[in-house]
Amino acid sequence: MARTERPIGIFDSGIGGLTVFEAVRKRLPGESLVYLGDSARVPYGTKSAETVIRYSLENAAFLEGKGVKAIVVACNTASALALPALSQKFDLPVLGVVNPGAKEAMAATKRRTIGVIGTSATIASDAYARALKELDSNVRVVSQACPLFVPLVEEGWTDNDVARAAAKHYLSDMHNEGIDVLILGCTHYPLLKPLIRETVGDAITLVDSAEATASALEALLGREGTRNKTSSKATYQIYVTDIPARFETVARRFLHNDLPGVRHVTI
Amino acid sequence: MARTERPIGIFDSGIGGLTVFEAVRKRLPGESLVYLGDSARVPYGTKSAETVIRYSLENAAFLEGKGVKAIVVACNTASALALPALSQKFDLPVLGVVNPGAKEAMAATKRRTIGVIGTSATIASDAYARALKELDSNVRVVSQACPLFVPLVEEGWTDNDVARAAAKHYLSDMHNEGIDVLILGCTHYPLLKPLIRETVGDAITLVDSAEATASALEALLGREGTRNKTSSKATYQIYVTDIPARFETVARRFLHNDLPGVRHVTI
Repeated sequence: MARTERPIGIFDSGIGGLTVFEAVRKRLPGESLVYLGDSARVPYGTKSAETVIRYSLENAAFLEGKGVKAIVVACNTASALALPALSQKFDLPVLGVVNPGAKEAMAATKRRTIGVIGTSATIASDAYARALKELDSNVRVVSQACPLFVPLVEEGWTDNDVARAAAKHYLSDMHNEGIDVLILGCTHYPLLKPLIRETVGDAITLVDSAEATASALEALLGREGTRNKTSSKATYQIYVTDIPARFETVARRFLHNDLPGVRHVTI
Repeated sequence: MARTERPIGIFDSGIGGLTVFEAVRKRLPGESLVYLGDSARVPYGTKSAETVIRYSLENAAFLEGKGVKAIVVACNTASALALPALSQKFDLPVLGVVNPGAKEAMAATKRRTIGVIGTSATIASDAYARALKELDSNVRVVSQACPLFVPLVEEGWTDNDVARAAAKHYLSDMHNEGIDVLILGCTHYPLLKPLIRETVGDAITLVDSAEATASALEALLGREGTRNKTSSKATYQIYVTDIPARFETVARRFLHNDLPGVRHVTI
């Protein structure tokens, strides 16, 4: 198969990365996509760097076996921890969600004070802060881990008193730190956008890494000369390492109800 | 090594099973214990039966390799789903946490109306309801999945407004169903006992499966004739498949600060 026609591989620790799948499908309708969600080992956000790197290499090897022309790491934790190991091991362009999110945030900030929220592992890795400081060493970064946000989204509690109390605990301090941009550094968080908006107010720009990544992927394929603009033949494959009871319910929330067939694999 | 002197193996999906380790250590001080926490793949509670069974067989094989004389499945989800597969595959007595918890609850109920709370997978498996109905076919069982309770415990939020709001959402209906006993069907939940007590009131007996399991284990070793009462030589080994950033902090909460050395293994 010509390199141009080969699919793009996307992996995530679970189904949260479907927000990235969705953003890429919208922005690049000519591209075929292969998604791998490592739902048997989700979440990555509470695990060590060593384990996250090992899992990421296994996921990328699966996608390489599917003949992909590029790999998108849709998981913030894996993007924060595993990009160097992935680039070293695979002879394919690898794109994470951290750098695109950081670039968009930097373009939007006027006060040079940016907030980042994510899982414990993403925040502990300091990856967003490093990416932002590489773009502008004078930027101030205020980070906050929000470990309850993922279970809240998966429970479907995005707009009740529990979610509201958790958002207040996590976000009220950040709000007082003078940030004017807030990066949603976890793929699940876009589903909490209305609640986050309500908690931090209208003056703060929310940056959704999924959309920033789709746009960065478009640029990357342009540079590589592998962009496929023939939309008629695009195919979508979704693989997961586990199909738990409520998988379809939750997946449909991420994909606005348009869910391709899902296959179960062991990797 | 004489069979009596061999250690008891305990496995769990993560560190929650340390509540069982702790209860066994207290009740059977003569026994050596080997604990395996599958923290690289935690949680099991949101995964499919097939995956939970596969992981459980791998965990038990690791413990068998350590020469254990019995296996305690400290994870409620694995107890609910994997006991038949484990008993079939291994030539060792295997004890889960579901049956001991059910027996203790049945002994305590007067109204024959028992509540069970646990992870989504434990509740969906209906294992407690089946175990209770085997003991008394006329018992009424009211079940409720509480998927946010584990992340709340791991965040250390066991006594704030977020935890209180979540407990109210999950437990207020149960309270109206006329239960007089509530089984805490997840190893993490004993750490939420004060909050659960506050939410359901004093009239309801709370059954902690960890303690019920330690007592059932004592009886099992008695029947097998493998009980070791020589306490001076007891050793404790803790293995985990991942050591994430906050592991020690969280583990100490479960073990009242008395944490043996922890070794990292890949299984």
